[in-house]
Amino acid sequence: MARPKPLSGFPEFLPAGRIVEQRVLDIVRETFELHGFASIETRAVEPLEQLARKGEIDKEIYAVQRLHAAADDAAELGLHFDLTVPFARYVLEHAGHLAFPFRRYQVQKVWRGERPQEGRYREFLQAAIDIVGQDALAAHHDVEIPLVALGVFTRLHDELGLPTATIHVNNRKLSEGFYRGLGVDDTAAVLQRVDKYDKIGPGAVKDLLVEELGLDDAQADACVALAGISAHDESFVDDVRALGVTHELMEEGLAELAQLVRVAGSDRVVADLKIARGLDYYTGTVYETFLDGSEKLGSVASGGRYDSLASDGKVTFPGVGYSFGITRILAPLIARGKLTATRSVPSVVLVAVDDEGTREASIAIAGRLRGRGIAVEVAPKADRFGKQIRYAERRGIPYVWFGADSVKDIRSGDQVDADPSTWEPPAADLRPQIIAEL
Amino acid sequence: MARPKPLSGFPEFLPAGRIVEQRVLDIVRETFELHGFASIETRAVEPLEQLARKGEIDKEIYAVQRLHAAADDAAELGLHFDLTVPFARYVLEHAGHLAFPFRRYQVQKVWRGERPQEGRYREFLQAAIDIVGQDALAAHHDVEIPLVALGVFTRLHDELGLPTATIHVNNRKLSEGFYRGLGVDDTAAVLQRVDKYDKIGPGAVKDLLVEELGLDDAQADACVALAGISAHDESFVDDVRALGVTHELMEEGLAELAQLVRVAGSDRVVADLKIARGLDYYTGTVYETFLDGSEKLGSVASGGRYDSLASDGKVTFPGVGYSFGITRILAPLIARGKLTATRSVPSVVLVAVDDEGTREASIAIAGRLRGRGIAVEVAPKADRFGKQIRYAERRGIPYVWFGADSVKDIRSGDQVDADPSTWEPPAADLRPQIIAEL
Repeated sequence: MARPKPLSGFPEFLPAGRIVEQRVLDIVRETFELHGFASIETRAVEPLEQLARKGEIDKEIYAVQRLHAAADDAAELGLHFDLTVPFARYVLEHAGHLAFPFRRYQVQKVWRGERPQEGRYREFLQAAIDIVGQDALAAHHDVEIPLVALGVFTRLHDELGLPTATIHVNNRKLSEGFYRGLGVDDTAAVLQRVDKYDKIGPGAVKDLLVEELGLDDAQADACVALAGISAHDESFVDDVRALGVTHELMEEGLAELAQLVRVAGSDRVVADLKIARGLDYYTGTVYETFLDGSEKLGSVASGGRYDSLASDGKVTFPGVGYSFGITRILAPLIARGKLTATRSVPSVVLVAVDDEGTREASIAIAGRLRGRGIAVEVAPKADRFGKQIRYAERRGIPYVWFGADSVKDIRSGDQVDADPSTWEPPAADLRPQIIAEL
Repeated sequence: MARPKPLSGFPEFLPAGRIVEQRVLDIVRETFELHGFASIETRAVEPLEQLARKGEIDKEIYAVQRLHAAADDAAELGLHFDLTVPFARYVLEHAGHLAFPFRRYQVQKVWRGERPQEGRYREFLQAAIDIVGQDALAAHHDVEIPLVALGVFTRLHDELGLPTATIHVNNRKLSEGFYRGLGVDDTAAVLQRVDKYDKIGPGAVKDLLVEELGLDDAQADACVALAGISAHDESFVDDVRALGVTHELMEEGLAELAQLVRVAGSDRVVADLKIARGLDYYTGTVYETFLDGSEKLGSVASGGRYDSLASDGKVTFPGVGYSFGITRILAPLIARGKLTATRSVPSVVLVAVDDEGTREASIAIAGRLRGRGIAVEVAPKADRFGKQIRYAERRGIPYVWFGADSVKDIRSGDQVDADPSTWEPPAADLRPQIIAEL
């Protein structure tokens, strides 16, 4: 077999990159669990008829079929392209066994048959949280989401050195109410144009609103002015009112968004009234998240409120959710060497082997260290010690254990007497450290 | 959408079952890392031509293709059906960036289009370890594998109450050398018949050897006698020698297997000379593992030594590996309620809400508890306290926090004054406990 070539759009990490990803996922999981979210995993496949319901996305679906299926059998299954469709199905399937509001997190790969390009993958990892109610879900849950997201991004920055992130929040009730208050009925069409604000600028958005949707000059100006409003605090409410539009739905949205930024109370949570999430089926709060300094990557984590995540005809399940694009955040940084680990293995210690006749003694020492939570390898070969040290060096293993009772820090060269039943490495050496050079 | 039906062969867990699975995977990961194995993940798909190389398995492959591919495009990708084929490809693709011997672990789902039945799944989770050398890999690595496996199963039993497990080990060199010493050349054919020993019994195996392979009575008796040998210690060596067959390859196998059981030094590692792993391409040590008391489930974890995990024509990569069938071990126990968790959520504490006007005070208390690693939810509704306690009860959350400074253990009814900046739950309540009723 010749050396295989990578498959475009299917990123894989070398061991040091995977250590970075694992540490990120540990922080994600810990934070989700501290906020009371329960883990679930769903199968990778869903019936194609369910996946294809969202018309916009069906061309990106990977169909799955037994290789030896009859030639005229149509494929019935596809790989999930997000974690929302399978979660909605899981809620309906298992509703009788779940307690609502149900708070779940889900960290899984998803697949999309898109043309691969910078920041777009065919297989990528998402980490999603959702809170789902039965028939109703209070608005205050929308406030929880950015608290969790902020918790994750703060730890990723403080502990691992990842970029800080800013969560941009809007509320569809606010925008839609505002448009209706202006006398515009096709609010979805307006949102889709406003969604291009960052890409094409306010002037071009105004032109689209006038030329494509037939808004008059004053209406289009007001829509663009609304999109231009942003604030870290409740001051945005006055800015909206200053535009002179009134509508009941807008008032609901204003109140929800004001509560959200007040409770978040952070410079990293911004009311940003141009956030539209054009084609998604949100009905209230919407979230987008940008890495500070890497805004051009686009939103790396997003979500929002659905009036109906799922419905079985009798019961409706409203939800609010948010998904971290783990691969989208990490793959570019790891690929460019900007995020790596101090070593490519978990091992803290390499136990040297004097000669093959004493390997069992080395195995016993390794066992005693492991019993106290220290990751250890035994040298693969009773080479001369210089070679065994180089084995450790090449992997970044910081310590080599010699004989029965001596351990050497191969970075400093310091060697000390030590008892494998009591010796402890410094806490900083216990796990690989993440190195961020951003 | 009507209530969806489960897809046969694609097991999914409710949240409490998933907590069991996560705890098991935590132990698996910790143990692998303590032994110096580095994590990797590979993409879910491989080129079909690579997957189909193992002739025996190709009918079970799921092909993957974009839904809107041209009708006459042949599928080029398939879902991996194990973690060995993708790992071999990963080693070849990244060999220049890996340090050998390379010790990796990999915990991922695999897919097989088999007919689902008890203990067989179409999607299931494997946890694999392999040690891979460049050109050569010392025999002593075969001894490490059962030490790691034993470490995992011991912790699963001691900490979570899972059944104990016994690892059965054989060595193909021993069996093949023995058969050759008897004058039998088609050793693979003999191994395939011996593989049925447990299912059909020694007499029927002998009949197959005579009738299908043309062995004479004495040869067939010797093969069956060899298969009947097992021991927890090196005494099996004498039992083999007592059969009076000599062969160089057999001696190699005897020495390797004797070293393995000696170093393992455990009743839970057995030299069992009927272990054949019929169709797999092992060339030395082979492992199978049975849950004590659930032997009828078949082997739940297995592996062995390959002379050539992969080769690019110039360099060959020999390996030894072992894979835990996580789904196979857990799914039947979880489905029958024999393994579950004390609660369905990570939350230790529910912070009650007096009225919606004071929700922010409850959120602040929750934040202080989380800051010290205590998982907390805030009550979704300012209901009367009885209802909020029932919310906690239904999820198994042990504590409810009332007002600014009071916490109630809802199991005992005890309520004490407490400061959210210092209060700690008992360590046993910090995470859901696993309940095993086997």
